Amino acid sequence: MSAIKEIKRDELDTTEFINERAKEISDLVGDGCAINALSGGVDSSAVTMLGHKALGDRLKTYFIDNGIMREGEPKKIESIFKKLGVKIKILNAQDKFFNAFKGITDPEEKREAVTQTFYKDVFGDLVKESNAKYLLQGTILTDVDETVAGIKRQHNVFEQLGIDPQKAFGYKIIEPLIQLRKDGVRKIAEAVGLPESIYNRPPFPGPALAARVVGEVTREKISIVRKATIVVEEELSSINAFQCMAILHNDRVTGMRDGKRDFGLQIEVRCWDSIDARKATPTKLPHELLTKLADRMCSEVPGVVSVTYNIASKPPSTMEVV
Amino acid sequence: MSAIKEIKRDELDTTEFINERAKEISDLVGDGCAINALSGGVDSSAVTMLGHKALGDRLKTYFIDNGIMREGEPKKIESIFKKLGVKIKILNAQDKFFNAFKGITDPEEKREAVTQTFYKDVFGDLVKESNAKYLLQGTILTDVDETVAGIKRQHNVFEQLGIDPQKAFGYKIIEPLIQLRKDGVRKIAEAVGLPESIYNRPPFPGPALAARVVGEVTREKISIVRKATIVVEEELSSINAFQCMAILHNDRVTGMRDGKRDFGLQIEVRCWDSIDARKATPTKLPHELLTKLADRMCSEVPGVVSVTYNIASKPPSTMEVV
Repeated sequence: MSAIKEIKRDELDTTEFINERAKEISDLVGDGCAINALSGGVDSSAVTMLGHKALGDRLKTYFIDNGIMREGEPKKIESIFKKLGVKIKILNAQDKFFNAFKGITDPEEKREAVTQTFYKDVFGDLVKESNAKYLLQGTILTDVDETVAGIKRQHNVFEQLGIDPQKAFGYKIIEPLIQLRKDGVRKIAEAVGLPESIYNRPPFPGPALAARVVGEVTREKISIVRKATIVVEEELSSINAFQCMAILHNDRVTGMRDGKRDFGLQIEVRCWDSIDARKATPTKLPHELLTKLADRMCSEVPGVVSVTYNIASKPPSTMEVV
Repeated sequence: MSAIKEIKRDELDTTEFINERAKEISDLVGDGCAINALSGGVDSSAVTMLGHKALGDRLKTYFIDNGIMREGEPKKIESIFKKLGVKIKILNAQDKFFNAFKGITDPEEKREAVTQTFYKDVFGDLVKESNAKYLLQGTILTDVDETVAGIKRQHNVFEQLGIDPQKAFGYKIIEPLIQLRKDGVRKIAEAVGLPESIYNRPPFPGPALAARVVGEVTREKISIVRKATIVVEEELSSINAFQCMAILHNDRVTGMRDGKRDFGLQIEVRCWDSIDARKATPTKLPHELLTKLADRMCSEVPGVVSVTYNIASKPPSTMEVV
């Protein structure tokens, strides 16, 4: 599907891979500096560690608080990397992102709004201030495949779409993980010293909770789906699924509260079994757990009167709803 | 909740009930004639048989083909009643109903559109032509409770809302089943000679498939949810659930077909365990069956890329989504 040579997990020599990628980064950046954005996912975390190994303090790592992260995320990630000796700068860019979402309902346009806000409005400024000419990025092979196939516009794939980031955004992109799939990245993340909470962390999408809201993304909807995400992650963490998520639908449905009609919200729960995200099937969760999930959603997430569980496989479904 | 005296199933003497109700109908209508609409559900079927017992050919029974029925429904019901010696007239009123649905998305307005079209535009004309002064109707006690409580506007409850059908529509309404709940009606339906396919038939809402479409109701959406309903009823008939249904959502979700992105449809399946519809819990269907349902929906219902199963209880959910 692409010209990039895949390295499979079982043929991956972690020491060799880490040393080679660190040398490449070091050779490219020279005595300049680079910049990267850490989302707290396994991909950007592994890249942060590789870049830090190659460049030390000449890699400036930013955590962009876009307002669409999970509860407590910025502080949690800052604390994990502080323990590993990597200093993270947190930048509050919530207003820029929520402004960009106004009036947008199409999934592709939403992803595009995240991309444009992230790379042009927020990261472009940071790169200019920092004088960095290089951006380190955690693109993996599955992102490239899916973008090229036109299934989904990943937020971090430019070259494959014929976009020159130097021209478009003013910097060059280095993608040290691009030959790997998710299982390979986890192996590297463990080998560079990241804790299990990171190297085994379930994937979370680039557009974050904005990908978990059907229809227009607002602060209020993000606040609701953030609460639903807490419930899903608490109840399903021990399942060790490939990925699990709560989705806030745009459709309103009839429910009842205190004996009266309530035209309320619906949350969809998805929990996926998968090896590499290319194909996936819903996890066969025990019915008692589904009932508990539904009960907690209805009592802890404001306005929710209906909860569903995804039963379709990928394909024709995708992991994310947006 | 209401002034109507409930008759519970286990205190219900079917012979006595049938004779008393038939006599009441006969006394009220005298030597005039009455009219009723048969939907094919257990309530209107039982009323048709009671009315036929009381009035013979002076009860004119119409089956209104509103375009929002299940596949093959009019012919199926006509055939069942023909065997019982009851002649049904089928009236095609599809255009009137679909015109009434245009631009309407709110559940209450949808139900109101069905009510108004049914009683004013379609049934009003029939009553005038027939010179009938009485309308027999299958209202049951749960309909009254839910309407009075403001949970849902049932399509057949007027008096309890302070609406005089004589003034509003030009006829009087006789409701022989109003002291019963669903389980009592089934006992009566069996006793009046209806086949098991009717007396054990799962409930189907007054607004029919229009209640199974979130958002605006169109011919196209009804056609899609009708196909999904076939799948649900074929796969779940042996489960003997209280009620099961397929719901077409208005939200579009990302999926993939033939390796390409497809912004497709989502079907929600609900299957309920309940005694009397006042409270209900989702049936704990085997995961293999859920997978089969999802696979069939994605392959047999055009445009579907995502399928969910309801896991919330009533309350705070309701049985129907609309």
